[in-house]
Amino acid sequence: MKIRFYNAKILTFTKDFEIIEGELWVEDSRITYVGKGILDSEDIFDREIDVNGNLIMPGFKNAHTHSAMTFLRSYADDMPLLDWLNTQVFPMEAKLNGEEMYHLSKLAILEYLTSGITANFDMYFCPEDVSKASIEMGFRTVMCGGISQFTGETDYSLDLLDGYYRKFNHYHERIGYRLGFHAEYTATRPLLEGIASLAEKYKAPVFTHNSESLAEVEQCIIRNGMTPTGYLNSLGIHNYGGGGFHCVHMTEGDLKIFKEKNLTVVTNPASNAKLASGIAPLKRMLDLGIPVAIGTDGPASNNCLDMFREMFLTTALQKLKENDASAMDANQVLYMATIGGANAMGLRDCDSLEQGKYADLIVIDLNQPNMQPLNNITKNLVYSGSKQNVKLTMIHGRILYEDNNFYVGEDVEKIYSKANEIINSKR
Amino acid sequence: MKIRFYNAKILTFTKDFEIIEGELWVEDSRITYVGKGILDSEDIFDREIDVNGNLIMPGFKNAHTHSAMTFLRSYADDMPLLDWLNTQVFPMEAKLNGEEMYHLSKLAILEYLTSGITANFDMYFCPEDVSKASIEMGFRTVMCGGISQFTGETDYSLDLLDGYYRKFNHYHERIGYRLGFHAEYTATRPLLEGIASLAEKYKAPVFTHNSESLAEVEQCIIRNGMTPTGYLNSLGIHNYGGGGFHCVHMTEGDLKIFKEKNLTVVTNPASNAKLASGIAPLKRMLDLGIPVAIGTDGPASNNCLDMFREMFLTTALQKLKENDASAMDANQVLYMATIGGANAMGLRDCDSLEQGKYADLIVIDLNQPNMQPLNNITKNLVYSGSKQNVKLTMIHGRILYEDNNFYVGEDVEKIYSKANEIINSKR
Repeated sequence: MKIRFYNAKILTFTKDFEIIEGELWVEDSRITYVGKGILDSEDIFDREIDVNGNLIMPGFKNAHTHSAMTFLRSYADDMPLLDWLNTQVFPMEAKLNGEEMYHLSKLAILEYLTSGITANFDMYFCPEDVSKASIEMGFRTVMCGGISQFTGETDYSLDLLDGYYRKFNHYHERIGYRLGFHAEYTATRPLLEGIASLAEKYKAPVFTHNSESLAEVEQCIIRNGMTPTGYLNSLGIHNYGGGGFHCVHMTEGDLKIFKEKNLTVVTNPASNAKLASGIAPLKRMLDLGIPVAIGTDGPASNNCLDMFREMFLTTALQKLKENDASAMDANQVLYMATIGGANAMGLRDCDSLEQGKYADLIVIDLNQPNMQPLNNITKNLVYSGSKQNVKLTMIHGRILYEDNNFYVGEDVEKIYSKANEIINSKR
Repeated sequence: MKIRFYNAKILTFTKDFEIIEGELWVEDSRITYVGKGILDSEDIFDREIDVNGNLIMPGFKNAHTHSAMTFLRSYADDMPLLDWLNTQVFPMEAKLNGEEMYHLSKLAILEYLTSGITANFDMYFCPEDVSKASIEMGFRTVMCGGISQFTGETDYSLDLLDGYYRKFNHYHERIGYRLGFHAEYTATRPLLEGIASLAEKYKAPVFTHNSESLAEVEQCIIRNGMTPTGYLNSLGIHNYGGGGFHCVHMTEGDLKIFKEKNLTVVTNPASNAKLASGIAPLKRMLDLGIPVAIGTDGPASNNCLDMFREMFLTTALQKLKENDASAMDANQVLYMATIGGANAMGLRDCDSLEQGKYADLIVIDLNQPNMQPLNNITKNLVYSGSKQNVKLTMIHGRILYEDNNFYVGEDVEKIYSKANEIINSKR
């Protein structure tokens, strides 16, 4: 399958984002050409798409989410984080089986497509079912281990994680797996030590929820005499990199560890605001050169899976926190939402629009009132962009969403019905 | 023209929002029926719309904006408020003429329609041109006086405001005008005294920017020994009501005045975040019983005109400020964005969906992934709703936007071109 996008603006990245005018060609899963587009007489395409002066850009990378939690959207809002986890999320999750997670993940994937998200870093249970949803729909998913003391005996959990890591990194071309665990506060010390051993065994990065709420940090200090970052570091968890989700309440010492170990902070501004967790010190992190990516978090806490809202919040909340309207400019945020996420997830082969990379891209409709006038396109994307501007989402060379229609090999109404059926069966 | 919406969910309001299933009929500009919809044999409609189980709700009221500032979108972001006003906004605005404001207002109106906004409270210059744009496109606009020491000698400005007030309140059925001025910090004392006299003359409410930034409040205290609210109150500006836009930095004394005079706070959370102005104490205001409405502010500061983003920010920022995830629930926010705004703008005849009211309504597509499952529809609207869910926008009984197409009597591409042409001519 050869597809030609012509009459396009194309967002490229070398040292900073740049917009060129021209064409982008795709053959099967990869980008074969980005440039002015002098058509060779030999070039025959299966489909030629007039982009009508609109923008082709890399798809967003959702660097932290729990897709299957769609079933809890608008189910139990307006509660403090730890209460919400303990009285609503954990008990409801315990009632879910793998097949249900498969259906619920599909619902999330539809929403990712509407928001121009082309890959997710998904921490949940039942990777077999979660990856099945992604594979069937044509999506790209890097799964993240989410074991905890609740997923069973230490040895059992560690064996699971080890098995998943080996299996799902050689499973499918659009599926990956990273070592990970739920959080310090849901892990015993032997479990954490075991994870550190796995990191050593595979020389692999490890990801986890880190310092999301102040209570979490305070309780960790009481338990271990150290912050979560300090404690995990003392156990060697991050000896081969990785990162933390949320990272709202970080000390300078924590940031120093992140810098030294080159750990990624995955920020989740909507979730952190809605759950009153706080605002992560992103400007300080960037000043220190710590890599930052953006995630939506799960739909139970956010409640939507919209990278445009996350991008605006990433910069707007930072301006509030720093009391400085010039803090964190649009291009920095756009980098986090695309290349920054890809780096964290190990997706360097689909992070930007270059010949040879996987064709994970979106078309942004600039001919919409919120994108006019065209004073500055990247600022427009971050400050006034919306899901409504996503005209097309392509993953691995395949168009999965175009002009409000889904091409995921299944009737979307059935996915909605199934999600409603599942939540209704649990009440 | 008689239109029947059937197979609908309908958002009604008595003491709280409620969703009924049934039909809504429109004849010319007004709603003629809301209910179960037992069709009478005599009922003949020009158009019958199967709402397909989706939601009909009142249009959003954008209770503070500067529509024509579309030309400055993404033009000069990332600057502190007062610098931004003085070095970018005021000099660029000075170059605009009325005809240009007419074209630029049209661009904003297109964007309002995509976001389900059916009326705007618009503070700008050249009401003749601003209202012309609104009238021609079928939109509903309440203009707000924006005079300041820069709009000319005191007497001249006051004569203008007086003239506008008399003219534009008897001008067109979809146009209104409220007394107003830019802000305390751009008004001389004689000007403010003159506005108080006009309020007295017409027994009319007065609106203005109030306590948007901390610097504004501090400088007012230095100049006048009082906060902006205290000072304006001492001059009798609000003797017949009205309200303040922004109201970020309010003392308890200020809030007491707002409560006593029944003044509306129009909050602008995205603008206040992006310009690092702060977070308004909305929870405290609601606890005191102060009326609150929501505005997008102008597209130069926001940068988009999206009530969904404003609604999420209204509650999410309040949760952050109060350090309480239960602060400000979804229905409170939805009230502010609809009925609260209508009350502030004097639009009680199109605030909710009831027989006899003007048909200012929108259809929300619930058959989208971000609205599923249907655990709680009003929470879905506030926490995960998006412009993408707006299927149809009707104002005064006329459909102006449906399935991503505009019906505003004009080619939208021309409106975009004109906006680009205007900004390019000013550089």
